[in-house]
Formats: sequence, structure tokens, C-alpha cells
Amino acid sequence: MHPVTYAPRRMQHDSPDCGPALRRIRAHAPFVYGLTNYVAAALSANVLLAAGAAPAIGAAPGWPAAFGAQAGGLWVNAAGLINATEHDMLAAIDAANTAGVPWVLDPVAMGAGAADYDAIIRRMAACRPAVIRGNASEIMALAGGAATARGVETTASITQAVPSGQALARSSGAIVAISGAEDHVLSPDGRQIIIPGGHRWLTAVTGAGCALGGLIAAGLAVTPHPGERLTTVAAVHALYARAAEMAAGPAQGPASFATGFVDALAQLQARADD
Amino acid sequence: MHPVTYAPRRMQHDSPDCGPALRRIRAHAPFVYGLTNYVAAALSANVLLAAGAAPAIGAAPGWPAAFGAQAGGLWVNAAGLINATEHDMLAAIDAANTAGVPWVLDPVAMGAGAADYDAIIRRMAACRPAVIRGNASEIMALAGGAATARGVETTASITQAVPSGQALARSSGAIVAISGAEDHVLSPDGRQIIIPGGHRWLTAVTGAGCALGGLIAAGLAVTPHPGERLTTVAAVHALYARAAEMAAGPAQGPASFATGFVDALAQLQARADD
Amino acid sequence: MHPVTYAPRRMQHDSPDCGPALRRIRAHAPFVYGLTNYVAAALSANVLLAAGAAPAIGAAPGWPAAFGAQAGGLWVNAAGLINATEHDMLAAIDAANTAGVPWVLDPVAMGAGAADYDAIIRRMAACRPAVIRGNASEIMALAGGAATARGVETTASITQAVPSGQALARSSGAIVAISGAEDHVLSPDGRQIIIPGGHRWLTAVTGAGCALGGLIAAGLAVTPHPGERLTTVAAVHALYARAAEMAAGPAQGPASFATGFVDALAQLQARADD
Repeated sequence: MHPVTYAPRRMQHDSPDCGPALRRIRAHAPFVYGLTNYVAAALSANVLLAAGAAPAIGAAPGWPAAFGAQAGGLWVNAAGLINATEHDMLAAIDAANTAGVPWVLDPVAMGAGAADYDAIIRRMAACRPAVIRGNASEIMALAGGAATARGVETTASITQAVPSGQALARSSGAIVAISGAEDHVLSPDGRQIIIPGGHRWLTAVTGAGCALGGLIAAGLAVTPHPGERLTTVAAVHALYARAAEMAAGPAQGPASFATGFVDALAQLQARADD
Repeated sequence: MHPVTYAPRRMQHDSPDCGPALRRIRAHAPFVYGLTNYVAAALSANVLLAAGAAPAIGAAPGWPAAFGAQAGGLWVNAAGLINATEHDMLAAIDAANTAGVPWVLDPVAMGAGAADYDAIIRRMAACRPAVIRGNASEIMALAGGAATARGVETTASITQAVPSGQALARSSGAIVAISGAEDHVLSPDGRQIIIPGGHRWLTAVTGAGCALGGLIAAGLAVTPHPGERLTTVAAVHALYARAAEMAAGPAQGPASFATGFVDALAQLQARADD
Repeated sequence: MHPVTYAPRRMQHDSPDCGPALRRIRAHAPFVYGLTNYVAAALSANVLLAAGAAPAIGAAPGWPAAFGAQAGGLWVNAAGLINATEHDMLAAIDAANTAGVPWVLDPVAMGAGAADYDAIIRRMAACRPAVIRGNASEIMALAGGAATARGVETTASITQAVPSGQALARSSGAIVAISGAEDHVLSPDGRQIIIPGGHRWLTAVTGAGCALGGLIAAGLAVTPHPGERLTTVAAVHALYARAAEMAAGPAQGPASFATGFVDALAQLQARADD
């Protein structure tokens, strides 16, 4: 157990180090492959398309092995087990690992009381994800702490989850990203970036957190050096937070907010081209 | 066969007895678990989030038994058989029944000509749902009448279906809710509430009927006394009808109507907090 | 190999021969059955409802055989293999063929590198689809040319794909429709209709191409004479292109574009009633 040796840094969408990874998504339109749940699938694809990436989703016969290897990045959303098998997910993960494709694990509903389900997530977490992203309850449960999730919702605060996230980053070797009132992105070597902002309505749009996992995979796809991944993951969170703020102003409720949020992602990324 | 001994009552969103159950959804944010189809899943989750509930959807390994027991309410949409098994559904229903969790059955496409499918719905209907909701053709078919559905669409009118619905309520012991030009909510003991209003564009939004099943489950979750369930189910229909009317005015077509409808649900429920 | 003996014809939504099939969709509200993927399912259903058709989607037990025979048209989207089996798809196709129901094949991601998956598409393509629709890479791969797809995206241009599409139309006996900067609709006997217009944002809306397959099936359902199918398929593309143009003007990004697109489909079809 090393002490945390870095002071937390704050990053926003207009921070100078935020732009490069986002511009590369737009410039390279990476192919990103996702195994996710049908509740979040359409929003996830639309978020990735808005940001300039090229997503494909689902486990048709042969896709996990082929697309896991061909993609620039892979995201595996555990709630995708509502429409794919553990075998599909492990096939995609194996293909990605063999081909050197970085992948993101989203431990949706970890610690919500389904032991078999949690065990599948633990097996996947042992397969060297580049990033683990989730809400406070999920990260705390995966780190071995208390099981506090209520379905797919967190009952814990981001502040409670940060020590668990730091321990999980160290033990897994993955970057750990926790979504909350402020987002925290944590590296195995103790660095920490805090992304303020965003909007509470993101939690009223089903699949918004799941889609973030896909966008992180797009960022990884255009970040060849592992040492730069922490900044990339934080930049993707900052893009998300800024788009949420832009959408919140004119929104009449959570559905027009969701529309404005995807539009704002596209607008921010279009400007990133300049 | 008892004669109907109560005169039908009419309820709208501004009726005095409509508010309490809706306010409790907002106040308690009940965890509601759904087994539904992937066409309707995202809208259903967004409708529940807009109303203030906390939904989880789908049959990942272990979820039906765990979430069926933990949730405050469960909804089972028969068209969910496009992405889950009868076994999943019965596991969730058994868990709910054992734990005393009320559940809603939506017999989508009952009577549309697929005999094996209809038989599965009959087996689930025998498992003591608290509420059965559907369109006119579905309720008539489940009550043992003519099979008139065309795919997931009704070809019968609400007026034709009410006698079947009353018979089904008596024989099953469930509250029966029929959606149509006016909605009718029927209790096993012969009470009847009519909810006028709504808007025809609701039928042009895929999954709007399915999502209503989820919202009814949220209402049940915050209605501890079975004797109050009839009012709760009617109140949820009245919320739906009022939100549809609010959305119809500024809408340019069915997609902007759908956005406005979810926004209106959130606006109405936010006011319910006051 | 016959030479192409017809000069390409251009068709737009205001062309005199475009209206009849579209008006018949509105007038007859055909029941259209789809086996498609969960990413595109909700948009596909909403597109069909906006145009005036009555869709049902998915392979619940007994649905493929029953609905494949009862529907006026069927569409089979190969990426539907992420949530249905080849057996489901062949059962629906067999039922449709036996009942004389025309069906549409959409070879999503054909040639993207998953050999087993491509083989399933080839087996379905041998079952006499009335129409095969796809993007340039998919049509080229199914015609036996180079495999150029990257996931579900094309890397080839429409111009490159037309000769392959003509060969595929001749060899399969199906009308072949290729989506691109301009859409090309090709008949087995060498006729060709070009549909200009549309908008690039259609490619930023996940499932927009998949939903077009459903709308083509709706058109086939109201076109009793096979000799008129080419015009119908082109008319559906022209409706799509015009709706995209209408939506693009006021849109703030791809999500408000998608909302406006479905609204515009409904508006155009409502006028078609007059």
C-alpha cells in the first residue's frame, strides 16, 4: 500500500491538455467495438457517432473474436450479460488482449446482490482492462468493499468511493474512473484527476453512464502511449461534463436534455477539428 | 358471475385522489425491476427515471431471483420473450411473489396467432399478478375471447374490451387496466375508473404502452395497501394522459412528441414534490 | 452477363411516380414484421409508425413462423443475429416465402471479417429475398467482391459498388438498393433509379440504415405487382432523402436531426393522405 504521492489535478474541457485526445477521435474516427446492454446500446452508438468514432455493438456469431481484434478500442459493459454470454465477453476480451487493443470494463450493478453476476465481473476484471469505470457503489464493491448498489443505482457518494478506487487501480493496474457529482480518474501509480461540472440530469438519462464507457474506449483507441491514457480518460469525462452543461440550459426535462447532450457532443467535437 | 355494482368513476391528473401515489413515487424513488423487450426498454427506463423511480431492466445471470425479490415492484412484459426466457420470467415472478413484491403483467400481442407464445402468457397470468395491463385485443384474448390482435396492435375498441376486462379481473383477482381512446381500470370487486384524455400520438411512439407497465409497477411499489391499488393504477394512467396532452401541443410529429412526453412526466412529477 | 440496357432514371419525393406506394402505406397501415438488432429496433419501429405502418419486432417463441406468414412484408437485418438465431431468421423467411410475403435482406457488416457471420448472410441471401439493401461495402462483399467493411461502416463509395450491385441483382433476382451520397436502386433486368439528396447526418444516427430496410418492407407490403417493386423501393428512398433534408435545416446536431427526421416522415406521409 503506497501512499498517494500526487496532489489531485482538476481538468475541464477548456484545459489545454484536454483537447489532443478529443481531436484525435474526430480525426481518426476509430472503430470501437462494444458489448453492452440493449437499454443503453442506441444511446451509446449515438454518443460515439457524435464524437466522431465508428461504433459496432453486439455479439453476432464471430463478431467478438473478429471485432475484438480489429477494433481500436473495446468496451465491455457487464449489464450486457442481459443479451450476451460470459463466453462472448471473454472471447472479445481475449481477442483484444492478444491484439493489443485496450479495453474498458464497466461493472454495472456490481454489489447489487446477484452473486453469480458479480463473480462474472470479477473474472473479467482479472483480464487486464485498461480502464475500469463505474459509479461509486460499483467501484467500492469491485474493490472488495461493501455491496451498496440498489439495482443499477449507486447509494454511495463519490467521496466514499475514492479510497476504494485508488486501491482498485493499484491492485488491478487499470485506470479507475468514478462518475459522481464530480468525476475522479485514478491511475495505478497514484495520480488523480478531478473533473468538476456536468449536470444531475445525466443520471436521469438511461444509459448515459454506459455510453461513457464506449467513449473512453474511443479515447484509448487514439492514445498509443499508455502513459497518456490517464489524461485521455479525464479528457473524455471533461467532454461529457461540458456537453451536459451546454444541454442543461435550454432543456425542458430529461428527454430534451438527452437530445441536447448528444448535439452538444457533436458541436464540441466539430469545433475540435479546427 | 357478479353484476357490476359500482358506477364508473372518472379520474384525471388534477383529481384530488390522483396525487398521493404519484408524490410517493417522487419521494421514495422505488427500485423497480423490469423484464421487457429491447424495443421498449430505453423508453421504459427513461419514463421511470422521469417519474422519479429507479429502474433496472433485463435478465442478467442472477438478476431475476435477486432483483425480483429486492425491488419494490416488478413488471413483466411478455414481448420481453424476444430477449429473455420463460424461465427468467418465472424466476423473477416467483421471487417477487415469495417476497411479497407486487408485479404487473403486460400480455403484449396476446391473441396475435402464436399459440406457444400465448400459452406462456397464460402460465404467467396464473401466477397472481397484481395488475394486468394491455390494449383491447390483448385483454380480450387473455380473458378467453376472440383473438383479434394484429402483431402488437389492437383491432378492437376499448368499449368492446371492458366486459372481457371485468371478467378477467374477477377470474384472476388482478386489477385490469385497458389502454385505449379512454383508459379503463377495473378491479376484481367490480369498481371501475375511466381515465379520459391522452393523445393518439402515444400510439405512434413505440414502447409507450410497455413503459406504462413499468410506471404502474412503480406506483404499486409505493402503495402498501392492496385496497388502494386501484386508485394508484388509475393515477398513473392519469399522469400518462396529462403528460401526453402537454406534449401534443408543441410537438411537430411523433418524435418531438415522445421527447415532450418524457419531459412533461418529469415536470408534472417535479411539481408533485411541492 | 447482359449489358445494362436502361439509362439510369432519377427520382425524388416530388416525382409523380413517387407518391402512390407511399400513399398506400398510409392508407393500408400494413403489418410489417422485423428481425433486427436491438441497437436499431426502437428507431425502426418509430420510423414505420411515422410512415403509417404497423411494425412488430423480434423473435419471441412462435413469432417467426406466425408473423412471417401473417405480415404484409418482412425485413431481416443480419445484425439481428446479436439477439436472434439463424434458425429464427430462417423460420421467418420460410414462413414468408411459403405465404408469398415479400422480404428484405439487410446484410449489415457483410465483409467485415467475421467469416461465420458472412456465411449465415449468404445462406439467407439464397432464400429469394425480394430486396437486398445495404451500404457500398456490404453489397460489394455479398456480390463476391472485396471485403472492405469496417464493423458496420462502409469504406467504399457508392460509385464503386454499383457494378457489384448490378451483378448481385442479376444473380439473385432481387432488387438491390445501395445507400450512399446518392442512393442507387437496381433491378435484375437492368433498370436503375438514382435517388439524390438526403443528408450526411443520416450516417450519424445509429440504425437509420437499418430502419430503411423496415420501411422498404412496408412499401413491398402494399405493392402487389412485382413489376412495380422497383418504383416502390425507390419511392421509399426518396421519402427518406426528403425527410432528411427537411430535418437538417433546423437541427442543432445529430440527435435533434433524428427527432426532426422522424417528425418529417410523419408530416410527409400525413400530406400523402390528401
